[in-house]
Amino acid sequence: MLKGFNYPLTPKGKSTLNPPPPWYYSADFLNVEFWAHPSAVAALLPPGLDLDHSLDGHSNALFYDWQFSGDNDEYLDPARYQYREFFILVDALYKGRPVSYCPYIFVDNDAALARGWSQGYPKRLGQVFQTRYYAATGKAGPTLATGAKFAGSLTAGGQRLAEGLVTLQEPITDPSLLTQTPVVNLLHYPRLAAGKHDQPALQELVENVPHDVKIEQAWIGEGSLTLPVCKGEEISDLAPVRCGKGIRASMSYIVDDLKTLRDLRKL
Amino acid sequence: MLKGFNYPLTPKGKSTLNPPPPWYYSADFLNVEFWAHPSAVAALLPPGLDLDHSLDGHSNALFYDWQFSGDNDEYLDPARYQYREFFILVDALYKGRPVSYCPYIFVDNDAALARGWSQGYPKRLGQVFQTRYYAATGKAGPTLATGAKFAGSLTAGGQRLAEGLVTLQEPITDPSLLTQTPVVNLLHYPRLAAGKHDQPALQELVENVPHDVKIEQAWIGEGSLTLPVCKGEEISDLAPVRCGKGIRASMSYIVDDLKTLRDLRKL
Amino acid sequence: MLKGFNYPLTPKGKSTLNPPPPWYYSADFLNVEFWAHPSAVAALLPPGLDLDHSLDGHSNALFYDWQFSGDNDEYLDPARYQYREFFILVDALYKGRPVSYCPYIFVDNDAALARGWSQGYPKRLGQVFQTRYYAATGKAGPTLATGAKFAGSLTAGGQRLAEGLVTLQEPITDPSLLTQTPVVNLLHYPRLAAGKHDQPALQELVENVPHDVKIEQAWIGEGSLTLPVCKGEEISDLAPVRCGKGIRASMSYIVDDLKTLRDLRKL
Amino acid sequence: MLKGFNYPLTPKGKSTLNPPPPWYYSADFLNVEFWAHPSAVAALLPPGLDLDHSLDGHSNALFYDWQFSGDNDEYLDPARYQYREFFILVDALYKGRPVSYCPYIFVDNDAALARGWSQGYPKRLGQVFQTRYYAATGKAGPTLATGAKFAGSLTAGGQRLAEGLVTLQEPITDPSLLTQTPVVNLLHYPRLAAGKHDQPALQELVENVPHDVKIEQAWIGEGSLTLPVCKGEEISDLAPVRCGKGIRASMSYIVDDLKTLRDLRKL
Repeated sequence: MLKGFNYPLTPKGKSTLNPPPPWYYSADFLNVEFWAHPSAVAALLPPGLDLDHSLDGHSNALFYDWQFSGDNDEYLDPARYQYREFFILVDALYKGRPVSYCPYIFVDNDAALARGWSQGYPKRLGQVFQTRYYAATGKAGPTLATGAKFAGSLTAGGQRLAEGLVTLQEPITDPSLLTQTPVVNLLHYPRLAAGKHDQPALQELVENVPHDVKIEQAWIGEGSLTLPVCKGEEISDLAPVRCGKGIRASMSYIVDDLKTLRDLRKL
Repeated sequence: MLKGFNYPLTPKGKSTLNPPPPWYYSADFLNVEFWAHPSAVAALLPPGLDLDHSLDGHSNALFYDWQFSGDNDEYLDPARYQYREFFILVDALYKGRPVSYCPYIFVDNDAALARGWSQGYPKRLGQVFQTRYYAATGKAGPTLATGAKFAGSLTAGGQRLAEGLVTLQEPITDPSLLTQTPVVNLLHYPRLAAGKHDQPALQELVENVPHDVKIEQAWIGEGSLTLPVCKGEEISDLAPVRCGKGIRASMSYIVDDLKTLRDLRKL
Repeated sequence: MLKGFNYPLTPKGKSTLNPPPPWYYSADFLNVEFWAHPSAVAALLPPGLDLDHSLDGHSNALFYDWQFSGDNDEYLDPARYQYREFFILVDALYKGRPVSYCPYIFVDNDAALARGWSQGYPKRLGQVFQTRYYAATGKAGPTLATGAKFAGSLTAGGQRLAEGLVTLQEPITDPSLLTQTPVVNLLHYPRLAAGKHDQPALQELVENVPHDVKIEQAWIGEGSLTLPVCKGEEISDLAPVRCGKGIRASMSYIVDDLKTLRDLRKL
Repeated sequence: MLKGFNYPLTPKGKSTLNPPPPWYYSADFLNVEFWAHPSAVAALLPPGLDLDHSLDGHSNALFYDWQFSGDNDEYLDPARYQYREFFILVDALYKGRPVSYCPYIFVDNDAALARGWSQGYPKRLGQVFQTRYYAATGKAGPTLATGAKFAGSLTAGGQRLAEGLVTLQEPITDPSLLTQTPVVNLLHYPRLAAGKHDQPALQELVENVPHDVKIEQAWIGEGSLTLPVCKGEEISDLAPVRCGKGIRASMSYIVDDLKTLRDLRKL
């Protein structure tokens, strides 16, 4: 019997990219709210998701410094499992219900890429960095205080694809500001067989169902984001028309499930 | 209509990890023949593949310096598409027919990882290097001559997983020495839905059907390989009992198809 | 007038690896106390430093997750300036005064490497990781509590050179436990001119004079360290005979000076 | 006695970044000729070098895929010693003699960075790639033929700093086309002692004296180069006014000496 959740499958299941769920996550993150051209958002949505015209292209860009673990103390092998991530969530509607859709996401670790793909996150590799906050603050970085600045950046294929900045104003006291609409992704797996290159082996609308979400040290303020035009890349089509609030916080959650909303191959 | 062979799917299909096939490849490679414990080989084989007891654990380890292109001059964006690879092929039987099975493979590029997964190659990320041959040889490297040495190495998750060495003896004049048995892989895609973590969304035996294979500058000699014991890794279970011939050559081929031999979910 | 503290020197001084001091640093770090063979420590000491025979090879191994800034908000460009570090400090005597000497140090960033060299730290590049603590703790990592575990690792040239583990027992209430003996380094710069390869352009004993050192969130417990034998590397000659206490804390300081103790070229 | 040409210095001299010279090099390279604004070239020249007003800002940009070795078969440890490089050479005059000066250079390896610094090359780390030519050509890359294209790119600090393209026209039959003017560099090493931040420990005009230069497979054609404007970088001040010929070739040489022309600290 071969074991392993992801590739490779081996007798003992140690070489696999990831242990089976549950998957535990903790992170520091930056969140920049922005509005893209609504037509650019609409053009990215898969069948089954609709643009919410009332939201004017409302979206969020996020930079995460993650630590991952399964049930085998994977957090004690940070060279294999720790990672950084950038992604965009655009607002959409699924059967009239507000959801978020992830058209672009980049990580710097293969285990994270594999977990993401199994959740419908269309991950590529990238180099992601964000300014850190340390308990022993000095002049090397921001404190958690009004006016403090945190920056994030993404590079992939050698090109700078995104830059973000969050300037803190005040701690978040209203927890509704941290409420996340459900993330609905397009789970896609291609088929290489000749004649079937446009008939994916898998194509489903799936809903992420994280639980035990905890958020700490949350501050809110102003956000800014740039998505420069780059060769061979379309992410700049979402370049902000304007930016909104910025958040910097620490969070944790658990992933052990995924809900299929619709099998798009049967359309 | 969203476009892209792999993730992400976008309106113009430029951001995708890979263009649709055909996929063109060229490489310089090292091949080290070795014999693993037959029981270690048998333990790695998926349902449908059998150990060839007559071959005594016969296997090959390969280091490749690849250049990839699709139909859009992707070879002119080497930062995004050029890559290096290490993999192992163990000999097996499929319905009595000699085939090769790939239990371990590592690349340093996400486009290559995605293409590999769609062919059933269980790729993880790693850092792979091999000694190069240059037209302007000096003392910085080997010539193509008897006694010349080429080394390869693989590191993943911060651990050195493999080291190989090929010492040239003579040019290959018998093309049968370069014949490759067909590669049969386990195409596997997990299912994250609760209760289905052990019911993969995809699990098929697939046969790779490369074509237009060309090999140039092939030399043969002696090979050596080490697969050190590492934490959280099983590849060392294939550590050579003995090593055989070594090959160093340049090759190219085309991939645009994959043949499904058996759907293992229906077993 | 060309500007720049380190290479390259340019008209505006923007391309330089580093702005001129003062240099500001913040970090989370792990510290593992250990005892190496005293003869291995003695063999590493430069002229002017002596082994303290009473200390039995006492040394420390440290893993740092750094944020750096100069006076131009460099902390807002983490892709260029944030970095990770591993180093060893062996105890020694300078004219009978207790000091620490750094024989091995690795970082993953060129600006850090350049600053280090100008302080006599013999930096090479490596991949360094340590377990992180987040304000929003979950099962993805440790809390700051008795029994919590933090791991660190170093890989360089594709080989795993060091692994450390700190298991927390209690917060540090006695600040003397965090006192650092002064670091005395060998500032060395070679001379490539023919006939002078063994006559360095610079060779000085230098003392680091950090100031405004702050330490927060310090916990103490048990430490463990391994320094595996690797090809082409001597760091394993310091492999611990035994290990002692382990510390995990956050710190910050400022560097803007270096004191030359002795010019060794004049010996 | 501590041994090692570069840091670190150890009892056996194995951990050092580099063995002592002689240093052997082989590479494939791309060379794009271009003309920058003469004032931008003049602004980069150190004391002792003058602009050749007759040359109108003539410069070259070069992409190299290197293999390095010392006398200990370092080419068999490519994970530690193989590397890629991008640099610019601007034409200048030293006491009326035509020379080249290197204001910008980037490599992806620490041993290469250390050797470069000891020759006055102002190296930073970057990710450099160039299109490869393989003996087994297919559609994955160019052949050595009229119209074949080779591309190169440089990324540093997460920003794309340079892109080049060479389109082949014909093999080089006139060896004078490959003649290289001597490279004169600014050897610079800063001083961290307070009050001396602008008094470098070393500042010399040095001349590189490579020997046993061999060039093979040289083709000439058209070149193009872009140096995009990037944050915190000045290299774009050299952006081409126009581009000239492009070369693609393989070369090897030996470095074991450096000639000091003038000690600039005594000016």
